[in-house]
Amino acid sequence: MTTTILSTPQAQPGKQEPTGYETPKPLRLDELHGSLSDPVLGSMTLLNEIAGRYPEAVSFAAGRPYEKFYDPAQLHLYLELFTRHLEEDLGRTPEQVRTALFQYGHTKGLLTDLLVQNLAVDEGITADPESIVVTTGCQEAMILLLRALRTDDRDVILAPAPTYVGFLGAARLMDMPVRPVREGAGGIDVDDLVTQIRRARAEGLRPRACYVVPDFANPSGLSMSLADRERLLEVAAAESVLLIEDNPYSLFNADGRRLPTLKSLDRRRSVVYVGSFAKTAFPGARVGYVVADQLVEGVTSGEGPLLADQLAKLKSMLTLNTSTISQAVIGGKLLANEGSMASATRREAEVYARNLRTLLDGLHRHFPAPGAQVTWNIPGGGMFAVLTLPFEADDAMLEYSAARFGVLWTPMRHFYAGVGGTHQIRLSFSVLDSERIDLGLARLAALVHDRTTKR
Amino acid sequence: MTTTILSTPQAQPGKQEPTGYETPKPLRLDELHGSLSDPVLGSMTLLNEIAGRYPEAVSFAAGRPYEKFYDPAQLHLYLELFTRHLEEDLGRTPEQVRTALFQYGHTKGLLTDLLVQNLAVDEGITADPESIVVTTGCQEAMILLLRALRTDDRDVILAPAPTYVGFLGAARLMDMPVRPVREGAGGIDVDDLVTQIRRARAEGLRPRACYVVPDFANPSGLSMSLADRERLLEVAAAESVLLIEDNPYSLFNADGRRLPTLKSLDRRRSVVYVGSFAKTAFPGARVGYVVADQLVEGVTSGEGPLLADQLAKLKSMLTLNTSTISQAVIGGKLLANEGSMASATRREAEVYARNLRTLLDGLHRHFPAPGAQVTWNIPGGGMFAVLTLPFEADDAMLEYSAARFGVLWTPMRHFYAGVGGTHQIRLSFSVLDSERIDLGLARLAALVHDRTTKR
Repeated sequence: MTTTILSTPQAQPGKQEPTGYETPKPLRLDELHGSLSDPVLGSMTLLNEIAGRYPEAVSFAAGRPYEKFYDPAQLHLYLELFTRHLEEDLGRTPEQVRTALFQYGHTKGLLTDLLVQNLAVDEGITADPESIVVTTGCQEAMILLLRALRTDDRDVILAPAPTYVGFLGAARLMDMPVRPVREGAGGIDVDDLVTQIRRARAEGLRPRACYVVPDFANPSGLSMSLADRERLLEVAAAESVLLIEDNPYSLFNADGRRLPTLKSLDRRRSVVYVGSFAKTAFPGARVGYVVADQLVEGVTSGEGPLLADQLAKLKSMLTLNTSTISQAVIGGKLLANEGSMASATRREAEVYARNLRTLLDGLHRHFPAPGAQVTWNIPGGGMFAVLTLPFEADDAMLEYSAARFGVLWTPMRHFYAGVGGTHQIRLSFSVLDSERIDLGLARLAALVHDRTTKR
Repeated sequence: MTTTILSTPQAQPGKQEPTGYETPKPLRLDELHGSLSDPVLGSMTLLNEIAGRYPEAVSFAAGRPYEKFYDPAQLHLYLELFTRHLEEDLGRTPEQVRTALFQYGHTKGLLTDLLVQNLAVDEGITADPESIVVTTGCQEAMILLLRALRTDDRDVILAPAPTYVGFLGAARLMDMPVRPVREGAGGIDVDDLVTQIRRARAEGLRPRACYVVPDFANPSGLSMSLADRERLLEVAAAESVLLIEDNPYSLFNADGRRLPTLKSLDRRRSVVYVGSFAKTAFPGARVGYVVADQLVEGVTSGEGPLLADQLAKLKSMLTLNTSTISQAVIGGKLLANEGSMASATRREAEVYARNLRTLLDGLHRHFPAPGAQVTWNIPGGGMFAVLTLPFEADDAMLEYSAARFGVLWTPMRHFYAGVGGTHQIRLSFSVLDSERIDLGLARLAALVHDRTTKR
């Protein structure tokens, strides 16, 4: 069959432009959704733009996983492993495999069984498969939760300040205000959480949930103690507030000691667990998931009874399904590692642990204690540490640092919804090697010297 | 490095349950976002649930592409082709290819150049690469647009009634009211569009855009004439309303005659074009895109000047990127077909055209004119036709039809935001063969006989 487009503008050279109509007015930014005028949404673009202009700089800015162990051949292998799994383990016919790989599928995804295994093996979490929704990265999981929990202007969410900028952005997109909670040396300050919940209620607001990254948080690098985890769970139950536990980094501990996730300690279905394969497999796949085993009352007959079922309904109008190809590749990686991403990422975890040691050793050398002009925290793992400087570290200072000293970092103020972190910077050490870390710290020391001697 | 989880619930058998706290109350549906109580979101789940209980029925319900030409080996081939394209055509080093396939990437996607070629080859559209954002299926493109255009309670969007349920659901998710526009035998009624725009303005509302599928619309199967397309463009310009053109089906014309898309006729940047690979490649990939070349005033320096740049900002907080693996597979399919999905889908287009003829012939045989109890429209292509029945065709009737006569279809009322389509059903003929179509129509005729003789 050959098809001809009957008439195109090119085919009508003599056709007159319609008259009497104006070219539509350009759109104005203030006629678009408020999030688009919010610095939170623009900040990452801006930081990437600065970084892009200094490709030779040592970058402590990029929060990306180490990539030298990636190999395109793995994609084929994992696809193949998952296809064989569908055929051999699940007994699907070739036609059913074809349908699973190519067609629209079950909104909750193709990986729920493999995720049940993974959660048991790596996290000691016993998950009901029906409580899991595979998402387009954990970002979509946060969007779904924020959408579900926002009924009207009274709903608010709590999060430590500083917090992951992707969560702040997602909340802004879903019109959900974020109320900050103080963060101490051990992560979220549970006493302040209680204070903030009660303050919000006194203002007539409904605090629906608290977002928290208990292990090696982005950006602070901090982790919660076991006692604080248990207290946090008690507070959540007592105050009838959900906890949204985001766990991208817990496998990357530097000392071989891991604390249990909130979800593994959760006996009252207080915790919605958000998982990511961006750091344990690779970001491009855009595969994450949410475990939401909370019961929902009042649902239509025929619908499942869990919050996960409601999140799946929202997903069916947001992205319909998570890419089957991406799911197959992640499924293949899980199969290749008997369900354990801890085992799959052993080499990466060693790189991060070594880099963290190099960073902390280097900081001691470059900023010896007596001066105490520069201080930092001591994360137990993850990808991030935070430095406090004796001068303001804003975007202009970043630009100065890049242009004059060839070193990039992230101003911490971008991780505060309101004000905060003015003198702090985040150092990410995940994609560097020891020499670059040392070089970057030497350049950072030169910046500090420059700014402090000029005062 | 070996890691021990220091303490898990299982490891503390003697540990007391904390006392003094209640198990959190279950969530209530009315405490979740309003969209979750809207029939629009539940309707597809409900229809799938009914269909799932009658696997032996002939299904005119599924709006899926024909899948017998799919082959898992294609995934490997396309991945390989795209990888080679990055290396050989774009001169990327192996390290850069690895980064492109595995890491976080440019929010607008990896495929913009291939899409520029595809739009020129298949649609006669000249697109600025910077105006394109690759999305997680066209569903995400609609979400981005609806989010961008919703600033406050005055913003509304227009769409023909009936319209694609995924658009109605996306609008509900983004809190954007949809105002219905009448549909005639030639698609959207442009006069009624003007009436509805003015009526909305008289109510103090801001009609921001009109959603339209000019070719073989889902669910109606109808197409707009060239004259109506040109009038629609004039009205959009005169009224300063954007047109959101969704084009999943235009390649599937049954008679070899195609009309130009609105975007190819657009001389005033009135049209935002939404493209999909769900029907031309495969749904599981979840790859779509949006062409948004509208200028936006008031943006921060360093940001791009187009609506596409604002949509990319929203996307950076919704899904971050579109799956790189999915993009690579779709890119490979484009490369294998010199950028032409029309050429890539020749066999599928033949199946759909043949099925449409079989359906229309069968309808004539099973429902001869004199009775005129059953009428239908005559689509020029696509995947759908609409029947009008002499009795109400609701979900209960669908259940009756499936249980007693073994035939499934879709009640048209699900495609009306408000009321409408009570006696109409959508017949999808994309995944059937001629025998199943004939069998299904015979069963449908039996249902009609049953319902009309019982009266």
